[in-house]
Amino acid sequence: MNAVSLQPEAMVTDIPAYMQGLGRAARAASRFVAEAESGRKNTALLAIADVIIGQRGALIEANRRDIEAGRASGLDDAMLDRLTLNDARIEAMAEGCRQVVGLPDPVGEITGLAYRPSGIQVGRMRVPLGVIGIIYESRPNVTIDAAALCLKSGNATILRGGSEALHSNRALAEIIQAGLVASGLPRTAVQIVATTDRAAVGELLQMPEHVDVIVPRGGKGLIARVSRESRVPVIKHLDGVCHVYIDTHADADKALAVAVNAKTQRYGTCNTMETLLVHADRAAEMLPRLKAAYDRYGVELRGCERTRVVLPDIQAAAESDWSEEYLAPVLAIRIVDSLETAMDHINTYGSQHTDSIITENWSAARRFLRAVDSSSVMVNASTRFADGFEYGLGAEIGISTDKLHARGPVGLEGLTTQKYVVLGDGHVRS
Amino acid sequence: MNAVSLQPEAMVTDIPAYMQGLGRAARAASRFVAEAESGRKNTALLAIADVIIGQRGALIEANRRDIEAGRASGLDDAMLDRLTLNDARIEAMAEGCRQVVGLPDPVGEITGLAYRPSGIQVGRMRVPLGVIGIIYESRPNVTIDAAALCLKSGNATILRGGSEALHSNRALAEIIQAGLVASGLPRTAVQIVATTDRAAVGELLQMPEHVDVIVPRGGKGLIARVSRESRVPVIKHLDGVCHVYIDTHADADKALAVAVNAKTQRYGTCNTMETLLVHADRAAEMLPRLKAAYDRYGVELRGCERTRVVLPDIQAAAESDWSEEYLAPVLAIRIVDSLETAMDHINTYGSQHTDSIITENWSAARRFLRAVDSSSVMVNASTRFADGFEYGLGAEIGISTDKLHARGPVGLEGLTTQKYVVLGDGHVRS
Repeated sequence: MNAVSLQPEAMVTDIPAYMQGLGRAARAASRFVAEAESGRKNTALLAIADVIIGQRGALIEANRRDIEAGRASGLDDAMLDRLTLNDARIEAMAEGCRQVVGLPDPVGEITGLAYRPSGIQVGRMRVPLGVIGIIYESRPNVTIDAAALCLKSGNATILRGGSEALHSNRALAEIIQAGLVASGLPRTAVQIVATTDRAAVGELLQMPEHVDVIVPRGGKGLIARVSRESRVPVIKHLDGVCHVYIDTHADADKALAVAVNAKTQRYGTCNTMETLLVHADRAAEMLPRLKAAYDRYGVELRGCERTRVVLPDIQAAAESDWSEEYLAPVLAIRIVDSLETAMDHINTYGSQHTDSIITENWSAARRFLRAVDSSSVMVNASTRFADGFEYGLGAEIGISTDKLHARGPVGLEGLTTQKYVVLGDGHVRS
Repeated sequence: MNAVSLQPEAMVTDIPAYMQGLGRAARAASRFVAEAESGRKNTALLAIADVIIGQRGALIEANRRDIEAGRASGLDDAMLDRLTLNDARIEAMAEGCRQVVGLPDPVGEITGLAYRPSGIQVGRMRVPLGVIGIIYESRPNVTIDAAALCLKSGNATILRGGSEALHSNRALAEIIQAGLVASGLPRTAVQIVATTDRAAVGELLQMPEHVDVIVPRGGKGLIARVSRESRVPVIKHLDGVCHVYIDTHADADKALAVAVNAKTQRYGTCNTMETLLVHADRAAEMLPRLKAAYDRYGVELRGCERTRVVLPDIQAAAESDWSEEYLAPVLAIRIVDSLETAMDHINTYGSQHTDSIITENWSAARRFLRAVDSSSVMVNASTRFADGFEYGLGAEIGISTDKLHARGPVGLEGLTTQKYVVLGDGHVRS
C-alpha cells in the first residue's frame, strides 16, 4: 500500500460540477457495494484498520497541521481537544473498524417469505439505502466510524467533515480508499468533500438523484440548516430534553440512584436528564435527599414554585427552563400531582427523545410505556442507557428523534431499507 | 344518530388560523386514538359502516350536488364517473370499513425484548405515527378508506379531498365523526379540510408541529407540488415505469403469459409494465408471438432498432420512451444482450417501482433479486401483483416509491413506527 500523500488542497473552482462528480461516482460505486458479499466488506474493514495503524505517523502529521491552523485561528481548548488525534485515539479508530467486522451483516436478509392465495411467494429483502451523505463537525474519528458503518451496511458514502479537520479527514479518506482498493471494492465507495467551501454542503443537500439520505451530526445550528435546506431525506437528531418522573409508587432508593445517574453520569450527552418530575406525595421525602446528592456533584437546581417550598434555597425555574437542553450541571425540577400531569408535561415540553418513570406500580408503568411518545421510553432505568451500544446495536451512526424510518439509536439496520421480493412460476393476475 | 346535515360551506376567512385549529385538534385527538384499544377502534369502524348504509340517501344527495357542479364546470365523463357515488360504491365503502376490522392491530406489539449485559431489557414497541394528512383527488371513497386505515393504526387524520368532491366529503366526514362519537372516540380524530381554498394545502404542509406525515394520492402534479413544498415528511408514490425482462433462459409460455398480463390486465395502474426487455437470443422466437398477442388487445408497440428488425411494422421508440409511464395501451420494447444490460436499463430508466425477470435459471434469478433496486423485484410473476391486497397487507394507503420508512405497498404497518422500550429495576449506567 502506498504511503498517505499529503498534497495541498486541490483547487476546487466549480463547486456544483465537483459535487455532481462526487455524486455520480458514489451512485456508481453504490451498486458494487450493495452486491458485495459480507466477506469482502469485512476484508476491507480489516484492511482499513491495518492501514490506520500502518499510517499512524502520517495521520498524526496531517492532524498536526489542523491543530496548528486551529490554534492560529483561535479555536478554544475543548475544540482543539476534540480535533486532536493521538496514539490512543488512532488505536480506537482501528479497533472500531474491527468491531464492525463482528456485527451481523443486515443486507440480503429475507423475512416473511410466504405463499399467498394466488400462489406467488411474497417476502421482504433488506437492502442498502444506496448513497449516504454524512455532514459532521470537528471530531475526525467520525470519518472512520461513519465510513465503517455505511460500508458494512452496503452503502456508498460522501463525508463532509468540519473545515478545521480537513487535513486529518483527507488523510483518513486516503487510508479508507487504500483499504477499499486492496479488497477489490471501488475507491469511490467512500469519498470526502475535499473543499472547505460551504457551498459544497448546499450542493450535497440538493442532489436527491445521487444521494439517498443525509445524516447530519453536530450542533443544533448545523442540524437546523440541513433540515431546512435539504431536498434529500434527513435522519436527524434534534434536542434531547429527557425526563425522569418519580411516581407516587417509586422505590426511594431506585429513584435516587436513577435520578442522580441520569443527570450526572455525563452532562454533555443528548440522553442526559434535563428535567426531573416528582409526584407531590413524594416531594417532601425525596427532594431533600436528591438535593444533597446533587450538591455533591455541584448540580444547580431550578425548581417550580412548589419545589421551592420544599427547597427554599434553590433558584426559580422560568417557563423556558422546561424546554431547555442544558448539556450542563443544571437541572429543572417540577412537582406534579399525577401520572397524567407528568405525561402531559413530557409530551408538551419534551423532545421525544428519552423519558423514564420510576415506579413499582404495574399499571403506571404499563400506561407510561404506551402513552409517552418518545423514541425511548423507560421504566426504572437511567435515560443514559439510550445508546446503540447499550441497546445491542453494536454501534450507532446517531440517535434519531424523527418518527419516520429510524427512531432512537440508529445502527446498521437504520442504514438499510426493505424491498419486496415476489417469486412465481409464470403467475399472472386475474 | 343524527341525520347528516348538509349545511352550506362554512365561510373560512382566516385560512392559517383555521388550519392551525384543525392541527391542534388533531394532535390532541391523536393521543386518545393512540391509546385506544383495538376493540374500541373496531367498534367505531363497524359504527361508521352502519352509518354509511343508514345515511345512504343523504350521501347520494350530497354527491348529486358535486356531480351537478362538476357537470356545470365541464368535468369530463371519466372525472364525473370517478366522482359518482351509487349504491354499489356506497356498499363497497361500508364493506371496506368492515374488512379493516378484520386486520390485525399493529399498535403496541413489542418485539425483540431481550436482556442486555447491563441487566436492562430492551425491545421495540410499534406505535402510531400520530397525525396523518391525506391529500387526494376526486374519488370520494378515498375519504373512507384512508380514514379507516389511519384509525385502525391509531392515528388521527386530516383529509383534504378534491374541491369537486367537497359536498360528498363533508357528508362522509359527518358520517365518520358520528361513528367515532358513538364509540367514545374524539370527533376530531378524523377531520376534513372544509374549504376549497388551495392555500389550505399550503398550510397543511407547513405544520410539522401538528402533522407527522403527509400522504398525497393523485396525479404527478399534485405529488410534485407536495414533495417540493412540504416541511412535513411525505410518503409518496411517483412514477411507475415497470419492466419485464425476458431472459435467455425464460420459459416461452410463462414469458408470454406474464408479459401480456403485466401490460394488458389494466392499463392505468402504476404497476403496469411500460417497457419490455427481451434477451437477443430469444427475440426472433418471442417477439412475433408477443406481437400477435398484443395485437389482439390493440396495444401499440414502440421498438428499439433491433426490435424493428424482427418486427418491421412497429413504430420506432425514441429515447424518451424508455422513461415514459404511458398508463395506456402502449409498450416500449428493447432487445438487450445480457442480464447486466437489462439490469442497467432498469436501474437507469426505471422508477424503482416494480420489475420482473422471466427465467428458469437459478443464478440469473438470484442475481436479479439482489441487484435490482426497486420497491418490488419479481421472478416469473406479473408486475400487476404489486399491491397491498395481493401481498397480504389487507389494504393499502398507497404504494411508496420512496426508500426511507415505507417502500412498496403501504398498509397498516407503514402508518406506524417503533419506539424503544427499556425495562429495569433501578438500573443505572456505569
